[in-house]
Amino acid sequence: MKTGKSRNKTYNVKMSVMYDGSRFQGWQRLGNGKENETIQGILERCISDILEEEVMVIGSGRTDAGVHAYGQVANVHITKELDLNEFQNQINQSLPKEIQVYGLEYVANQFHSRYDATSKYYEYHIGIGEVESPFYRKQRLYVREELNLDLMRKAAEYLCGTHDFTGFSSTMKDGRNTVKTIYEIEIMKEKDQIIISYHGDGFLYNMVRILTGTLLEIGQGDRTPESILTIFEKGDRQYAGKTVEGKGLFLKKVVYI
Amino acid sequence: MKTGKSRNKTYNVKMSVMYDGSRFQGWQRLGNGKENETIQGILERCISDILEEEVMVIGSGRTDAGVHAYGQVANVHITKELDLNEFQNQINQSLPKEIQVYGLEYVANQFHSRYDATSKYYEYHIGIGEVESPFYRKQRLYVREELNLDLMRKAAEYLCGTHDFTGFSSTMKDGRNTVKTIYEIEIMKEKDQIIISYHGDGFLYNMVRILTGTLLEIGQGDRTPESILTIFEKGDRQYAGKTVEGKGLFLKKVVYI
Repeated sequence: MKTGKSRNKTYNVKMSVMYDGSRFQGWQRLGNGKENETIQGILERCISDILEEEVMVIGSGRTDAGVHAYGQVANVHITKELDLNEFQNQINQSLPKEIQVYGLEYVANQFHSRYDATSKYYEYHIGIGEVESPFYRKQRLYVREELNLDLMRKAAEYLCGTHDFTGFSSTMKDGRNTVKTIYEIEIMKEKDQIIISYHGDGFLYNMVRILTGTLLEIGQGDRTPESILTIFEKGDRQYAGKTVEGKGLFLKKVVYI
Repeated sequence: MKTGKSRNKTYNVKMSVMYDGSRFQGWQRLGNGKENETIQGILERCISDILEEEVMVIGSGRTDAGVHAYGQVANVHITKELDLNEFQNQINQSLPKEIQVYGLEYVANQFHSRYDATSKYYEYHIGIGEVESPFYRKQRLYVREELNLDLMRKAAEYLCGTHDFTGFSSTMKDGRNTVKTIYEIEIMKEKDQIIISYHGDGFLYNMVRILTGTLLEIGQGDRTPESILTIFEKGDRQYAGKTVEGKGLFLKKVVYI
Protein backbone atom coordinates (compact mmCIF):
# COMPACT_ATOMS: atom_id res chain seq x y z
CA MET A 1 0.00 0.00 0.00
CA LYS A 2 1.35 3.44 -0.98
CA THR A 3 1.70 6.21 1.55
CA GLY A 4 -0.12 9.42 0.60
CA LYS A 5 1.58 12.80 0.49
CA SER A 6 0.10 13.73 3.85
CA ARG A 7 -0.46 10.95 6.32
CA ASN A 8 -4.04 9.66 6.51
CA LYS A 9 -5.26 12.01 3.81
CA THR A 10 -8.37 10.44 2.26
CA TYR A 11 -10.73 11.38 -0.52
CA ASN A 12 -14.46 10.79 -0.27
CA VAL A 13 -16.09 9.69 -3.52
CA LYS A 14 -19.86 9.76 -3.94
CA MET A 15 -21.41 7.63 -6.66
CA SER A 16 -24.82 6.62 -7.96
CA VAL A 17 -25.47 2.92 -8.43
CA MET A 18 -27.94 1.22 -10.79
CA TYR A 19 -28.65 -2.45 -10.40
CA ASP A 20 -30.92 -5.21 -11.52
CA GLY A 21 -31.24 -6.95 -8.16
CA SER A 22 -32.84 -10.14 -9.54
CA ARG A 23 -30.04 -12.53 -8.75
CA PHE A 24 -28.64 -10.86 -5.63
CA GLN A 25 -29.29 -11.22 -1.91
CA GLY A 26 -29.88 -7.49 -1.56
CA TRP A 27 -27.56 -4.58 -0.84
CA GLN A 28 -25.94 -5.51 2.43
CA ARG A 29 -22.61 -7.33 2.53
CA LEU A 30 -22.69 -10.96 3.69
CA GLY A 31 -19.67 -12.87 4.93
CA ASN A 32 -18.81 -16.54 4.71
CA GLY A 33 -18.10 -16.84 1.01
CA LYS A 34 -21.21 -14.86 0.08
CA GLU A 35 -19.28 -11.73 -0.87
CA ASN A 36 -20.49 -12.07 -4.45
CA GLU A 37 -24.16 -12.31 -3.60
CA THR A 38 -24.77 -8.73 -2.53
CA ILE A 39 -24.38 -5.38 -4.25
CA GLN A 40 -22.30 -3.89 -1.44
CA GLY A 41 -20.07 -6.97 -1.28
CA ILE A 42 -19.42 -6.91 -5.02
CA LEU A 43 -18.73 -3.16 -5.10
CA GLU A 44 -16.30 -3.41 -2.21
CA ARG A 45 -14.40 -6.34 -3.70
CA CYS A 46 -14.26 -4.68 -7.07
CA ILE A 47 -13.04 -1.27 -5.82
CA SER A 48 -10.59 -2.91 -3.41
CA ASP A 49 -9.11 -4.92 -6.29
CA ILE A 50 -8.67 -1.80 -8.43
CA LEU A 51 -7.12 0.31 -5.66
CA GLU A 52 -5.23 -2.52 -3.98
CA GLU A 53 -6.53 -1.34 -0.65
CA GLU A 54 -9.44 -2.38 1.56
CA VAL A 55 -12.44 -0.09 1.20
CA MET A 56 -15.89 0.15 2.73
CA VAL A 57 -18.77 1.21 0.50
CA ILE A 58 -21.45 3.08 2.47
CA GLY A 59 -24.93 2.95 0.93
CA SER A 60 -27.87 5.28 1.53
CA GLY A 61 -29.72 2.26 2.88
CA ARG A 62 -30.23 -1.44 2.36
CA THR A 63 -32.35 -2.90 -0.35
CA ASP A 64 -33.81 -6.40 0.01
CA ALA A 65 -33.14 -9.46 -2.12
CA GLY A 66 -34.51 -9.00 -5.63
CA VAL A 67 -34.99 -5.24 -5.25
CA HIS A 68 -33.57 -2.97 -7.96
CA ALA A 69 -32.13 0.54 -8.07
CA TYR A 70 -31.86 3.30 -10.60
CA GLY A 71 -30.30 5.73 -8.18
CA GLN A 72 -28.90 4.12 -5.08
CA VAL A 73 -26.21 6.43 -3.66
CA ALA A 74 -23.02 5.29 -2.01
CA ASN A 75 -19.75 6.79 -0.88
CA VAL A 76 -16.29 5.39 -0.39
CA HIS A 77 -13.15 6.81 1.21
CA ILE A 78 -9.99 6.22 -0.81
CA THR A 79 -6.38 7.22 -0.27
CA LYS A 80 -5.41 8.14 -3.84
CA GLU A 81 -6.67 11.09 -5.83
CA LEU A 82 -7.90 9.57 -9.07
CA ASP A 83 -9.37 10.74 -12.36
CA LEU A 84 -13.01 9.89 -11.64
CA ASN A 85 -14.01 9.24 -15.25
CA GLU A 86 -11.28 6.67 -15.52
CA PHE A 87 -12.13 5.25 -12.09
CA GLN A 88 -15.80 4.89 -13.12
CA ASN A 89 -14.80 3.05 -16.29
CA GLN A 90 -12.51 0.73 -14.36
CA ILE A 91 -15.22 -0.07 -11.84
CA ASN A 92 -17.89 -0.67 -14.50
CA GLN A 93 -15.60 -2.91 -16.52
CA SER A 94 -14.93 -5.08 -13.52
CA LEU A 95 -18.54 -5.15 -12.23
CA PRO A 96 -21.04 -7.70 -13.51
CA LYS A 97 -23.40 -6.11 -16.04
CA GLU A 98 -26.27 -6.14 -13.55
CA ILE A 99 -24.52 -3.43 -11.50
CA GLN A 100 -23.13 -0.18 -12.88
CA VAL A 101 -21.99 3.05 -11.25
CA TYR A 102 -22.29 6.58 -12.59
CA GLY A 103 -21.95 10.22 -11.63
CA LEU A 104 -18.82 9.84 -9.49
CA GLU A 105 -17.78 13.03 -7.66
CA TYR A 106 -15.55 14.14 -4.83
CA VAL A 107 -17.49 15.27 -1.79
CA ALA A 108 -16.57 16.63 1.64
CA ASN A 109 -14.89 14.09 3.87
CA GLN A 110 -17.74 14.16 6.37
CA PHE A 111 -20.40 13.33 3.73
CA HIS A 112 -22.19 10.09 4.64
CA SER A 113 -24.62 8.48 2.17
CA ARG A 114 -26.95 7.21 4.86
CA TYR A 115 -26.89 9.90 7.54
CA ASP A 116 -27.08 12.79 5.09
CA ALA A 117 -29.95 11.48 2.96
CA THR A 118 -32.94 13.77 3.45
CA SER A 119 -35.52 11.93 1.35
CA LYS A 120 -35.96 8.98 -0.98
CA TYR A 121 -38.06 8.05 -3.96
CA TYR A 122 -39.17 4.45 -4.46
CA GLU A 123 -41.27 3.00 -7.25
CA TYR A 124 -43.23 -0.21 -7.27
CA HIS A 125 -44.02 -1.64 -10.74
CA ILE A 126 -47.09 -3.79 -11.33
CA GLY A 127 -47.71 -5.52 -14.66
CA ILE A 128 -51.37 -5.56 -15.68
CA GLY A 129 -53.49 -6.89 -18.51
CA GLU A 130 -54.66 -10.27 -19.67
CA VAL A 131 -51.16 -11.66 -20.24
CA GLU A 132 -48.02 -11.21 -18.17
CA SER A 133 -45.26 -9.57 -20.19
CA PRO A 134 -42.31 -11.94 -20.75
CA PHE A 135 -39.92 -8.99 -20.64
CA TYR A 136 -40.41 -7.82 -17.07
CA ARG A 137 -41.02 -11.05 -15.20
CA LYS A 138 -38.20 -10.22 -12.77
CA GLN A 139 -38.94 -6.51 -12.57
CA ARG A 140 -42.68 -6.34 -12.01
CA LEU A 141 -45.32 -7.94 -9.87
CA TYR A 142 -48.09 -9.17 -12.16
CA VAL A 143 -51.70 -8.63 -11.11
CA ARG A 144 -54.34 -9.95 -13.43
CA GLU A 145 -57.45 -8.60 -11.68
CA GLU A 146 -58.69 -5.12 -12.56
CA LEU A 147 -57.55 -2.57 -9.95
CA ASN A 148 -59.71 0.32 -8.80
CA LEU A 149 -57.22 3.17 -8.93
CA ASP A 150 -59.65 5.70 -7.46
CA LEU A 151 -59.88 3.70 -4.25
CA MET A 152 -56.10 3.26 -4.19
CA ARG A 153 -55.59 7.02 -4.62
CA LYS A 154 -58.06 7.72 -1.84
CA ALA A 155 -56.05 5.39 0.44
CA ALA A 156 -52.81 7.05 -0.68
CA GLU A 157 -54.16 10.38 0.61
CA TYR A 158 -54.62 8.84 4.07
CA LEU A 159 -51.05 7.53 3.96
CA CYS A 160 -49.43 10.85 3.13
CA GLY A 161 -48.24 13.05 5.94
CA THR A 162 -46.43 12.36 9.20
CA HIS A 163 -47.45 9.18 10.98
CA ASP A 164 -46.10 6.38 13.12
CA PHE A 165 -45.71 3.67 10.47
CA THR A 166 -45.13 0.77 12.87
CA GLY A 167 -48.21 -1.01 11.46
CA PHE A 168 -46.62 -0.88 8.00
CA SER A 169 -43.27 -2.32 8.98
CA SER A 170 -41.64 -5.63 9.75
CA THR A 171 -39.18 -3.92 12.08
CA MET A 172 -38.76 -5.39 15.51
CA LYS A 173 -39.15 -2.86 18.30
CA ASP A 174 -35.55 -1.68 18.56
CA GLY A 175 -36.00 1.88 19.71
CA ARG A 176 -35.69 3.32 16.21
CA ASN A 177 -37.90 6.21 15.27
CA THR A 178 -40.98 4.81 13.54
CA VAL A 179 -42.46 8.23 12.78
CA LYS A 180 -41.93 9.04 9.12
CA THR A 181 -43.29 11.55 6.65
CA ILE A 182 -44.59 10.55 3.23
CA TYR A 183 -44.63 13.63 1.02
CA GLU A 184 -46.37 12.11 -1.96
CA ILE A 185 -47.70 8.86 -3.40
CA GLU A 186 -48.44 8.89 -7.11
CA ILE A 187 -50.32 6.09 -8.82
CA MET A 188 -49.75 6.14 -12.57
CA LYS A 189 -51.28 3.87 -15.18
CA GLU A 190 -49.34 3.16 -18.35
CA LYS A 191 -50.21 0.80 -21.19
CA ASP A 192 -49.30 -2.46 -19.50
CA GLN A 193 -48.26 -1.42 -16.01
CA ILE A 194 -49.16 0.59 -12.95
CA ILE A 195 -46.40 2.45 -11.17
CA ILE A 196 -46.80 3.50 -7.56
CA SER A 197 -44.25 6.15 -6.70
CA TYR A 198 -43.42 6.98 -3.07
CA HIS A 199 -41.53 10.03 -1.82
CA GLY A 200 -40.75 10.22 1.86
CA ASP A 201 -38.13 11.29 4.37
CA GLY A 202 -37.37 7.65 5.18
CA PHE A 203 -38.91 4.21 5.07
CA LEU A 204 -38.94 1.45 7.68
CA TYR A 205 -37.99 -2.15 7.01
CA ASN A 206 -40.32 -3.63 4.33
CA MET A 207 -42.48 -0.50 4.55
CA VAL A 208 -42.81 0.17 0.80
CA ARG A 209 -43.66 -3.47 0.13
CA ILE A 210 -46.32 -3.51 2.87
CA LEU A 211 -47.77 -0.17 1.73
CA THR A 212 -47.99 -1.58 -1.80
CA GLY A 213 -49.56 -4.83 -0.62
CA THR A 214 -52.16 -2.86 1.33
CA LEU A 215 -52.90 -0.54 -1.61
CA LEU A 216 -53.33 -3.55 -3.91
CA GLU A 217 -55.84 -5.17 -1.56
CA ILE A 218 -57.76 -1.89 -1.59
CA GLY A 219 -57.61 -1.76 -5.39
CA GLN A 220 -58.95 -5.30 -5.55
CA GLY A 221 -61.83 -4.42 -3.23
CA ASP A 222 -60.62 -6.65 -0.41
CA ARG A 223 -60.38 -3.77 2.06
CA THR A 224 -61.47 -0.13 2.21
CA PRO A 225 -59.34 3.02 1.91
CA GLU A 226 -60.46 3.81 5.47
CA SER A 227 -58.81 0.63 6.74
CA ILE A 228 -55.58 2.67 6.55
CA LEU A 229 -56.82 4.68 9.52
CA THR A 230 -57.33 1.49 11.54
CA ILE A 231 -53.78 0.33 10.79
CA PHE A 232 -52.41 3.66 12.05
CA GLU A 233 -54.63 3.46 15.13
CA LYS A 234 -53.69 -0.13 16.02
CA GLY A 235 -50.03 0.30 15.10
CA ASP A 236 -49.86 -3.44 14.49
CA ARG A 237 -48.44 -5.16 11.40
CA GLN A 238 -51.21 -7.78 11.35
CA TYR A 239 -53.85 -5.23 10.32
CA ALA A 240 -51.99 -4.18 7.15
CA GLY A 241 -51.86 -5.96 3.78
CA LYS A 242 -49.32 -8.54 2.81
CA THR A 243 -45.68 -7.83 1.95
CA VAL A 244 -45.47 -7.97 -1.85
CA GLU A 245 -42.43 -9.48 -3.59
CA GLY A 246 -39.22 -7.48 -3.79
CA LYS A 247 -38.93 -7.93 -7.56
CA GLY A 248 -41.29 -5.00 -8.39
CA LEU A 249 -39.44 -2.50 -6.21
CA PHE A 250 -36.98 0.14 -7.41
CA LEU A 251 -34.99 2.63 -5.35
CA LYS A 252 -35.34 5.53 -7.75
CA LYS A 253 -33.55 8.47 -6.19
CA VAL A 254 -31.92 9.60 -2.96
CA VAL A 255 -32.06 13.29 -2.14
CA TYR A 256 -29.37 15.27 -0.26
CA ILE A 257 -30.02 18.94 0.36
CA MET B 1 -58.42 -39.44 -29.33
CA LYS B 2 -62.02 -38.37 -29.86
CA THR B 3 -63.62 -38.47 -33.29
CA GLY B 4 -65.12 -35.16 -34.38
CA LYS B 5 -68.73 -34.84 -35.50
CA SER B 6 -67.68 -34.81 -39.12
CA ARG B 7 -64.60 -36.77 -40.10
CA ASN B 8 -61.41 -34.74 -40.50
CA LYS B 9 -63.08 -31.53 -39.46
CA THR B 10 -60.40 -29.17 -38.17
CA TYR B 11 -60.38 -25.72 -36.65
CA ASN B 12 -57.70 -23.18 -37.45
CA VAL B 13 -56.62 -21.02 -34.52
CA LYS B 14 -54.57 -17.87 -35.03
CA MET B 15 -52.62 -16.49 -32.10
CA SER B 16 -50.16 -13.74 -31.30
CA VAL B 17 -47.00 -14.73 -29.48
CA MET B 18 -44.77 -12.59 -27.24
CA TYR B 19 -41.39 -13.88 -26.21
CA ASP B 20 -38.17 -12.89 -24.57
CA GLY B 21 -35.86 -14.85 -26.85
CA SER B 22 -32.76 -14.49 -24.66
CA ARG B 23 -32.34 -18.10 -23.71
CA PHE B 24 -33.74 -19.76 -26.84
CA GLN B 25 -32.26 -20.99 -30.10
CA GLY B 26 -34.75 -18.95 -32.12
CA TRP B 27 -38.20 -19.76 -33.45
CA GLN B 28 -37.69 -22.84 -35.56
CA ARG B 29 -38.16 -26.31 -34.14
CA LEU B 30 -35.01 -28.41 -33.64
CA GLY B 31 -34.99 -32.17 -33.25
CA ASN B 32 -32.66 -34.44 -31.30
CA GLY B 33 -33.70 -33.57 -27.79
CA LYS B 34 -33.63 -29.84 -28.50
CA GLU B 35 -37.43 -29.48 -28.54
CA ASN B 36 -37.28 -27.19 -25.53
CA GLU B 37 -34.74 -24.81 -27.00
CA THR B 38 -36.95 -23.13 -29.58
CA ILE B 39 -40.19 -21.17 -29.39
CA GLN B 40 -41.93 -23.30 -32.02
CA GLY B 41 -40.78 -26.53 -30.36
CA ILE B 42 -42.05 -25.43 -26.94
CA LEU B 43 -45.40 -24.20 -28.31
CA GLU B 44 -45.96 -27.45 -30.19
CA ARG B 45 -45.11 -29.64 -27.22
CA CYS B 46 -47.25 -27.56 -24.91
CA ILE B 47 -50.33 -27.49 -27.18
CA SER B 48 -49.93 -31.18 -28.05
CA ASP B 49 -49.88 -32.03 -24.34
CA ILE B 50 -53.05 -30.02 -23.67
CA LEU B 51 -54.98 -31.46 -26.63
CA GLU B 52 -53.48 -34.93 -26.49
CA GLU B 53 -52.89 -34.78 -30.21
CA GLU B 54 -49.89 -33.93 -32.37
CA VAL B 55 -50.03 -30.37 -33.69
CA MET B 56 -47.87 -28.23 -35.92
CA VAL B 57 -47.54 -24.54 -35.09
CA ILE B 58 -46.98 -22.41 -38.19
CA GLY B 59 -45.21 -19.09 -37.57
CA SER B 60 -45.19 -15.97 -39.76
CA GLY B 61 -41.46 -16.50 -40.11
CA ARG B 62 -38.39 -17.57 -38.18
CA THR B 63 -36.62 -15.43 -35.67
CA ASP B 64 -32.96 -16.07 -34.85
CA ALA B 65 -31.43 -17.10 -31.53
CA GLY B 66 -31.79 -14.33 -28.95
CA VAL B 67 -34.37 -12.39 -30.98
CA HIS B 68 -37.59 -11.30 -29.24
CA ALA B 69 -41.19 -10.77 -30.31
CA TYR B 70 -44.08 -8.64 -29.18
CA GLY B 71 -46.32 -9.76 -31.98
CA GLN B 72 -45.18 -12.91 -33.70
CA VAL B 73 -48.22 -14.55 -35.32
CA ALA B 74 -48.81 -18.29 -35.56
CA ASN B 75 -51.65 -20.63 -36.44
CA VAL B 76 -52.44 -24.18 -35.49
CA HIS B 77 -55.01 -26.67 -36.79
CA ILE B 78 -56.84 -28.53 -34.05
CA THR B 79 -59.60 -31.14 -34.13
CA LYS B 80 -61.68 -29.96 -31.15
CA GLU B 81 -63.71 -26.78 -30.94
CA LEU B 82 -62.53 -25.14 -27.73
CA ASP B 83 -63.36 -22.07 -25.68
CA LEU B 84 -60.41 -19.93 -26.77
CA ASN B 85 -60.14 -17.90 -23.56
CA GLU B 86 -59.78 -21.09 -21.61
CA PHE B 87 -57.40 -22.53 -24.20
CA GLN B 88 -55.23 -19.41 -23.99
CA ASN B 89 -55.08 -19.68 -20.21
CA GLN B 90 -54.16 -23.36 -20.41
CA ILE B 91 -51.38 -22.67 -22.90
CA ASN B 92 -49.97 -19.74 -20.90
CA GLN B 93 -50.01 -21.69 -17.67
CA SER B 94 -48.02 -24.48 -19.23
CA LEU B 95 -45.58 -22.26 -21.16
CA PRO B 96 -42.42 -20.92 -19.54
CA LYS B 97 -42.88 -17.27 -18.51
CA GLU B 98 -40.60 -16.11 -21.34
CA ILE B 99 -43.26 -17.09 -23.88
CA GLN B 100 -46.93 -16.10 -23.73
CA VAL B 101 -49.75 -16.20 -26.28
CA TYR B 102 -52.64 -13.77 -26.64
CA GLY B 103 -55.48 -12.77 -28.94
CA LEU B 104 -56.51 -16.30 -29.96
CA GLU B 105 -59.19 -16.41 -32.66
CA TYR B 106 -60.70 -18.85 -35.12
CA VAL B 107 -59.78 -18.09 -38.72
CA ALA B 108 -60.60 -19.64 -42.09
CA ASN B 109 -59.09 -23.07 -42.60
CA GLN B 110 -56.92 -21.88 -45.45
CA PHE B 111 -55.33 -19.06 -43.40
CA HIS B 112 -51.54 -19.52 -43.25
CA SER B 113 -49.44 -17.32 -40.94
CA ARG B 114 -46.48 -17.24 -43.27
CA TYR B 115 -48.00 -17.18 -46.76
CA ASP B 116 -50.71 -14.67 -45.87
CA ALA B 117 -48.51 -12.12 -44.11
CA THR B 118 -48.44 -8.94 -46.18
CA SER B 119 -45.99 -6.88 -44.15
CA LYS B 120 -43.96 -6.90 -40.96
CA TYR B 121 -42.67 -4.42 -38.41
CA TYR B 122 -39.35 -5.00 -36.72
CA GLU B 123 -37.61 -2.85 -34.14
CA TYR B 124 -33.97 -2.77 -33.21
CA HIS B 125 -33.20 -1.34 -29.75
CA ILE B 126 -29.86 0.33 -29.01
CA GLY B 127 -28.91 1.44 -25.50
CA ILE B 128 -26.97 4.71 -25.42
CA GLY B 129 -25.33 6.95 -22.84
CA GLU B 130 -22.28 6.81 -20.67
CA VAL B 131 -23.36 3.69 -18.78
CA GLU B 132 -25.06 0.55 -20.08
CA SER B 133 -28.41 -0.01 -18.36
CA PRO B 134 -28.41 -3.16 -16.21
CA PHE B 135 -32.08 -3.72 -17.01
CA TYR B 136 -31.88 -4.32 -20.75
CA ARG B 137 -28.58 -6.10 -21.16
CA LYS B 138 -30.31 -8.96 -23.02
CA GLN B 139 -32.77 -6.76 -24.93
CA ARG B 140 -30.58 -4.00 -26.33
CA LEU B 141 -27.31 -3.59 -28.13
CA TYR B 142 -25.26 -1.02 -26.23
CA VAL B 143 -23.35 1.61 -28.20
CA ARG B 144 -21.31 4.06 -26.20
CA GLU B 145 -20.15 6.35 -29.00
CA GLU B 146 -22.35 9.27 -29.99
CA LEU B 147 -24.41 8.45 -33.09
CA ASN B 148 -25.15 10.99 -35.83
CA LEU B 149 -28.87 10.41 -36.35
CA ASP B 150 -29.09 12.84 -39.26
CA LEU B 151 -26.66 10.74 -41.27
CA MET B 152 -28.52 7.56 -40.29
CA ARG B 153 -31.85 9.08 -41.39
CA LYS B 154 -30.31 10.15 -44.68
CA ALA B 155 -29.16 6.56 -45.24
CA ALA B 156 -32.60 5.26 -44.23
CA GLU B 157 -34.11 7.28 -47.07
CA TYR B 158 -31.86 5.47 -49.55
CA LEU B 159 -32.93 2.13 -48.10
CA CYS B 160 -36.67 2.74 -48.39
CA GLY B 161 -38.45 1.63 -51.54
CA THR B 162 -38.22 -1.48 -53.69
CA HIS B 163 -34.71 -2.89 -54.13
CA ASP B 164 -32.83 -6.13 -54.52
CA PHE B 165 -31.54 -6.55 -50.96
CA THR B 166 -29.06 -9.37 -51.70
CA GLY B 167 -26.21 -7.18 -50.41
CA PHE B 168 -28.01 -6.89 -47.07
CA SER B 169 -28.62 -10.59 -46.58
CA SER B 170 -26.81 -13.71 -45.49
CA THR B 171 -29.06 -15.82 -47.70
CA MET B 172 -27.39 -18.27 -50.00
CA LYS B 173 -28.46 -18.00 -53.61
CA ASP B 174 -31.42 -20.37 -53.54
CA GLY B 175 -33.69 -18.88 -56.15
CA ARG B 176 -35.80 -16.98 -53.62
CA ASN B 177 -36.97 -13.53 -54.50
CA THR B 178 -34.49 -11.05 -53.08
CA VAL B 179 -36.47 -8.00 -54.18
CA LYS B 180 -38.24 -6.49 -51.18
CA THR B 181 -39.97 -3.23 -50.39
CA ILE B 182 -39.21 -1.22 -47.28
CA TYR B 183 -42.10 1.16 -46.65
CA GLU B 184 -40.56 3.08 -43.79
CA ILE B 185 -37.59 3.24 -41.46
CA GLU B 186 -38.02 5.40 -38.38
CA ILE B 187 -35.12 6.31 -36.11
CA MET B 188 -36.35 7.48 -32.72
CA LYS B 189 -34.28 8.74 -29.82
CA GLU B 190 -35.57 8.26 -26.30
CA LYS B 191 -33.84 9.06 -23.02
CA ASP B 192 -31.46 6.13 -22.92
CA GLN B 193 -32.10 4.31 -26.17
CA ILE B 194 -32.43 4.64 -29.91
CA ILE B 195 -35.10 2.57 -31.64
CA ILE B 196 -34.86 1.83 -35.33
CA SER B 197 -38.23 0.70 -36.62
CA TYR B 198 -38.53 -1.11 -39.97
CA HIS B 199 -41.72 -1.71 -41.92
CA GLY B 200 -41.50 -3.79 -45.07
CA ASP B 201 -43.28 -6.42 -47.11
CA GLY B 202 -40.70 -9.00 -46.12
CA PHE B 203 -37.14 -9.35 -44.91
CA LEU B 204 -34.38 -11.69 -46.04
CA TYR B 205 -32.27 -13.81 -43.71
CA ASN B 206 -30.36 -11.53 -41.28
CA MET B 207 -31.50 -8.50 -43.26
CA VAL B 208 -32.69 -6.34 -40.34
CA ARG B 209 -29.51 -7.06 -38.41
CA ILE B 210 -27.30 -6.17 -41.40
CA LEU B 211 -29.33 -3.03 -42.15
CA THR B 212 -28.91 -2.00 -38.52
CA GLY B 213 -25.18 -2.76 -38.51
CA THR B 214 -24.78 -0.66 -41.64
CA LEU B 215 -26.81 2.23 -40.22
CA LEU B 216 -24.74 2.15 -37.02
CA GLU B 217 -21.49 2.37 -38.97
CA ILE B 218 -22.93 5.39 -40.76
CA GLY B 219 -23.99 6.95 -37.45
CA GLN B 220 -20.48 6.45 -36.10
CA GLY B 221 -18.95 8.12 -39.16
CA ASP B 222 -17.28 4.97 -40.43
CA ARG B 223 -19.11 5.05 -43.76
CA THR B 224 -21.29 7.51 -45.66
CA PRO B 225 -25.05 7.40 -46.26
CA GLU B 226 -24.20 7.12 -49.97
CA SER B 227 -22.39 3.84 -49.37
CA ILE B 228 -25.91 2.35 -49.33
CA LEU B 229 -26.08 2.98 -53.07
CA THR B 230 -22.83 1.07 -53.60
CA ILE B 231 -24.16 -1.92 -51.67
CA PHE B 232 -27.27 -2.00 -53.87
CA GLU B 233 -25.12 -1.66 -56.96
CA LYS B 234 -22.66 -4.41 -56.02
CA GLY B 235 -25.34 -6.71 -54.57
CA ASP B 236 -22.66 -8.28 -52.42
CA ARG B 237 -22.85 -8.88 -48.67
CA GLN B 238 -19.20 -7.90 -48.14
CA TYR B 239 -19.89 -4.23 -48.90
CA ALA B 240 -22.51 -3.86 -46.14
CA GLY B 241 -21.96 -3.35 -42.41
CA LYS B 242 -21.64 -6.10 -39.89
CA THR B 243 -24.50 -8.25 -38.62
CA VAL B 244 -25.38 -6.88 -35.18
CA GLU B 245 -26.36 -9.20 -32.33
CA GLY B 246 -29.83 -10.72 -32.27
CA LYS B 247 -30.52 -9.55 -28.72
CA GLY B 248 -31.61 -6.02 -29.75
CA LEU B 249 -34.13 -7.24 -32.32
CA PHE B 250 -37.92 -7.43 -31.81
CA LEU B 251 -40.55 -8.74 -34.23
CA LYS B 252 -43.14 -6.10 -33.42
CA LYS B 253 -46.13 -6.81 -35.61
CA VAL B 254 -47.23 -8.95 -38.56
CA VAL B 255 -49.85 -7.49 -40.88
CA TYR B 256 -52.52 -9.47 -42.76
CA ILE B 257 -54.87 -7.52 -45.01
